[in-house]
Amino acid sequence: MQDNYQQKTLGILGGGQLGRMVIQSAISYNIDIHILDPDANAPCKHICQAFTQGKLTDYDTVYQFGQNCDIITIEIENVNTDALEQLAKEGKKVFPQPHIIKLIQDKREQKQFYKEQGIPTADFILTDNKEAVLANADFLPAVNKLGKEGYDGRGVQVVRTAADLDKAFEAPSLMEKLVDFDKEIAVIVSRNEQGELDAFPPVECAFHPTANLVEFLFAPAQISDAISEEAIQVAKEVITKLDMIGILAVEMFVTKEGEILVNEVAPRPHNSGHHTIEANFTSQFEQHLRAVMGMPLGNSELRMPAAMVNLLGEDGFTGDALVEGMDEAMQEKGVYIHLYGKKITKPFRKMGHVTILEENVEALKAKALKVKEIIKIKA
Amino acid sequence: MQDNYQQKTLGILGGGQLGRMVIQSAISYNIDIHILDPDANAPCKHICQAFTQGKLTDYDTVYQFGQNCDIITIEIENVNTDALEQLAKEGKKVFPQPHIIKLIQDKREQKQFYKEQGIPTADFILTDNKEAVLANADFLPAVNKLGKEGYDGRGVQVVRTAADLDKAFEAPSLMEKLVDFDKEIAVIVSRNEQGELDAFPPVECAFHPTANLVEFLFAPAQISDAISEEAIQVAKEVITKLDMIGILAVEMFVTKEGEILVNEVAPRPHNSGHHTIEANFTSQFEQHLRAVMGMPLGNSELRMPAAMVNLLGEDGFTGDALVEGMDEAMQEKGVYIHLYGKKITKPFRKMGHVTILEENVEALKAKALKVKEIIKIKA
Repeated sequence: MQDNYQQKTLGILGGGQLGRMVIQSAISYNIDIHILDPDANAPCKHICQAFTQGKLTDYDTVYQFGQNCDIITIEIENVNTDALEQLAKEGKKVFPQPHIIKLIQDKREQKQFYKEQGIPTADFILTDNKEAVLANADFLPAVNKLGKEGYDGRGVQVVRTAADLDKAFEAPSLMEKLVDFDKEIAVIVSRNEQGELDAFPPVECAFHPTANLVEFLFAPAQISDAISEEAIQVAKEVITKLDMIGILAVEMFVTKEGEILVNEVAPRPHNSGHHTIEANFTSQFEQHLRAVMGMPLGNSELRMPAAMVNLLGEDGFTGDALVEGMDEAMQEKGVYIHLYGKKITKPFRKMGHVTILEENVEALKAKALKVKEIIKIKA
Repeated sequence: MQDNYQQKTLGILGGGQLGRMVIQSAISYNIDIHILDPDANAPCKHICQAFTQGKLTDYDTVYQFGQNCDIITIEIENVNTDALEQLAKEGKKVFPQPHIIKLIQDKREQKQFYKEQGIPTADFILTDNKEAVLANADFLPAVNKLGKEGYDGRGVQVVRTAADLDKAFEAPSLMEKLVDFDKEIAVIVSRNEQGELDAFPPVECAFHPTANLVEFLFAPAQISDAISEEAIQVAKEVITKLDMIGILAVEMFVTKEGEILVNEVAPRPHNSGHHTIEANFTSQFEQHLRAVMGMPLGNSELRMPAAMVNLLGEDGFTGDALVEGMDEAMQEKGVYIHLYGKKITKPFRKMGHVTILEENVEALKAKALKVKEIIKIKA
């Protein structure tokens, strides 16, 4: 048997930091990677075999790009799925499968899928416009989520009382019961064509109070074994019921009653798995690669407790990025800085992340806080 | 303080697997890397910011290449050091410093340096031609080493008895007493401009019986704490006496009497440090980068015992490389395959390596043997 993955070309729609970290991993396997991204200075530009500047939502652009690839995957959901469907029809391997990307592009469809499949999720109402949201004031407190094109905090509004209702979206959206959760956790599951199924250990996310982005992440999540196992089961159920090939990040709430509710999913490497590069036996980026390339899945056990801190552009700074405090952070044992190759910083832009390894969980939290204080992205 | 390493360009002379793994590491720091290599299909070609095809030993080529870089380093010793000296004179940072590369290019000068500096090394005689070797038959058994341009097993001949003397080199070489060693070990030391000094834990090398290449490597070396500390001290002494900036792999013999003798050094990432990517807190590739870029050095402790197996082209196969047994090896926990991006295999060509992690040292050895049996590079 000769397993020559290196004779196959992998096309990635999107050339941002997620693609960049997939490439970093793919270099070890000699896999040729082609990138499509609208930004002429995309983070992947100089480290791939072929870079095409073009719109991810344009049918012809995506279709043409896919012609030169054997396998096509994504690092962002907002892509033209019709072109991907056509490529799949013509024999290209497209993972995650186009219909799954389509489903996940629309949070309304995503929620209905959970309901139909009996996957635990918070109660919700579909609303077609602002008026429909206003009419459901008795459903508050709720989260109003735009059906399509919400990303990284955009397209999500917390509506606690009738006074907040003017924040509602004038577009197809959904109202989801605000969950009084104890913790937010995430499980990344993987599945390949051979039917292998794997789950990374659950992690715990702490969100930035205003930017709605993960601020700290801790692995493993400080939850009971029973909740951990249940979370893994739920995540495996989602990827299996989707019949999906690739990796899927499943974000979940653990309620104060210990119930698990699926919040959202992402069918690609995800911010909640960045620590796996150093903390786990196999990283999420390599696991994604393995799953879509038809390789055997890797072991995803945790080697050491870890924390992850996103490096967001400081509020009030826009322009050529300057990284403050790098030297100080680099002197710490088990501190790993990842910069994403973006020249320009903007408030809350994801400019990089730092992973922190530490056997002792208390020391880990202290070190994560320290790193966050030390490193600042300014201009 | 703003430590914007990402605004500096690093030029590397040589674009092979060592450069490739440096780039893999440098991606996390946004460092622009320029590569000079004579091979149009060098392993680094598609993953660097700028690739120049050109001769590493040509003055003008190296000098011109260096003009566009802020810092210049090497991944192979056989480069034009006069051009590097000129670049250093004009204010470029060249690490390792040109005079050190020059010293190490010539094994005769290297040996004399050890002798002058009181660094323990096997007894030797300098010989200018075959005749001079023949005249020293009473020095046998010995190793006859070519002064210049020996690399990866070329330029080294074991001369046990007078009958082997016809293998002697007809060029400036040296005869070194054949050491009846117990183990061959290596220590990688690092030093930056700030004067920080670090040593990776000693590793143990097992050589291929005929190809004179490392076949297995184990970390940590199975040696006493006293010998381990002495080996680290000797390696630190070498880099300090050289006054070198960068990383230096110091290969040493441990004699049956427990004496340490320096064999050879390499002023760059080295085969004996490949396991550090997964096994240590900081890899040798990142440490090299940190040392030459003027960053603080990283912690180089071992996270877990490791073995490394070189993937050499199988004897008898030349042509488009095929990797046999990859799937089987990839299923094992803690097995990391690194392919070097070389399309063509030749007998004993370094095509990749595999790192194996395992807490238990006996299980580690068994798994390393198994991996070596499973993966074959054919054509």
